[in-house]
Amino acid sequence: MVVLPKKALRPRTVGRLSIYRRVLNQLLENGSVHIFSRDLATLAGVSASQVRQDLMNVPACGTPQHGYSAIELLLSVNRCLGTTTRASTVLLGAGHLGQAILAHFQATQPDLEMKAVFEVDPALVGQRLHNITILPLTDLEYQLRLIKAKVAILAVPSNVAQILAEQLVNAGICSILNFTPIRLQLPQHVYVEDNDIQTSLERVAYYATAPMNQGVNA
Amino acid sequence: MVVLPKKALRPRTVGRLSIYRRVLNQLLENGSVHIFSRDLATLAGVSASQVRQDLMNVPACGTPQHGYSAIELLLSVNRCLGTTTRASTVLLGAGHLGQAILAHFQATQPDLEMKAVFEVDPALVGQRLHNITILPLTDLEYQLRLIKAKVAILAVPSNVAQILAEQLVNAGICSILNFTPIRLQLPQHVYVEDNDIQTSLERVAYYATAPMNQGVNA
Repeated sequence: MVVLPKKALRPRTVGRLSIYRRVLNQLLENGSVHIFSRDLATLAGVSASQVRQDLMNVPACGTPQHGYSAIELLLSVNRCLGTTTRASTVLLGAGHLGQAILAHFQATQPDLEMKAVFEVDPALVGQRLHNITILPLTDLEYQLRLIKAKVAILAVPSNVAQILAEQLVNAGICSILNFTPIRLQLPQHVYVEDNDIQTSLERVAYYATAPMNQGVNA
Repeated sequence: MVVLPKKALRPRTVGRLSIYRRVLNQLLENGSVHIFSRDLATLAGVSASQVRQDLMNVPACGTPQHGYSAIELLLSVNRCLGTTTRASTVLLGAGHLGQAILAHFQATQPDLEMKAVFEVDPALVGQRLHNITILPLTDLEYQLRLIKAKVAILAVPSNVAQILAEQLVNAGICSILNFTPIRLQLPQHVYVEDNDIQTSLERVAYYATAPMNQGVNA
């Protein structure tokens, strides 16, 4: 369980603010200049009261009654999410999942700067992926300190997830996106976001079969 | 909120059983024949009492005291998760994220049979991805009924997610893996698994910056 300081936003709030930001970007691209919280709510797929509550975390630039300037609200959300600097990020695992994540990463340009990719398989080490050379895992802690990495994306086999995560934390990583199914045991100051695609796929498979369909509305 | 029938396992239980299955497969590959629940717990990263509670859903083939035959436990978990038939599955969205998901899908072979990929961009329609021809979204409902699709993976832009999800449900889809950030409003019998990679990335970026690091342990 991560202990959040009083001033930090809760993970769900951060998630929704990042969705609002995407909606606002889309609106601005489409030429909108003004937005009401109820419209933002509809476009983000959440309730209007949830939007109003979330926007209390964002320095005021409008009101629920009179609406918001789309560009000012976007800039304010950006400041709130701290996107003025892009955190140095590394990817562990250049296998199939790692490559897919890196490709998605490069295409969507999140608030992260990908600095290095590490991999244990000697056949992959030395190759280049999206202009980044794949490094061996043996150099991990040294390299992490060298590039002052703060964020790591973990896309390695389950059996090495915990030991690598401990090395990451030793070398200064404070935020981990964990694509393995392992629940990492790490110090409380480290934020871990679990995203297990394999388990997601197996769950939708399960609920597509008999138990879910029979008598669900009974 | 999905209403689960009495006999259906809860989503978190399904997720853990799918993790146990991966651990058991790994153990069998490494030559293990017998396993204790406490070892399964360690390897899966959960507590021993959680494993014992989960295995109460699996037809008995051992006990916590005497351990389990790894192969019998694996087969029993497989039966429990209903993996004797692979549900017909479609992917909506052949953009960058869709292609990454499909590649991951093909590599890991989940309990799903990918039958079709749909895309709105005319430049992509007609191309082949991993031996599957990309179809236009205009044919969606007709094609879904034709192939008796039960599962859909949604990797489309946010602004079309809700309307496409409604078409999916009209055509018989009962389980959706939603990679968009939109919270879909759908009938209760439909299972929706949300997996928003973009939001995951933005959350780890947020917690890598000042608010999370200051005074976390204060």
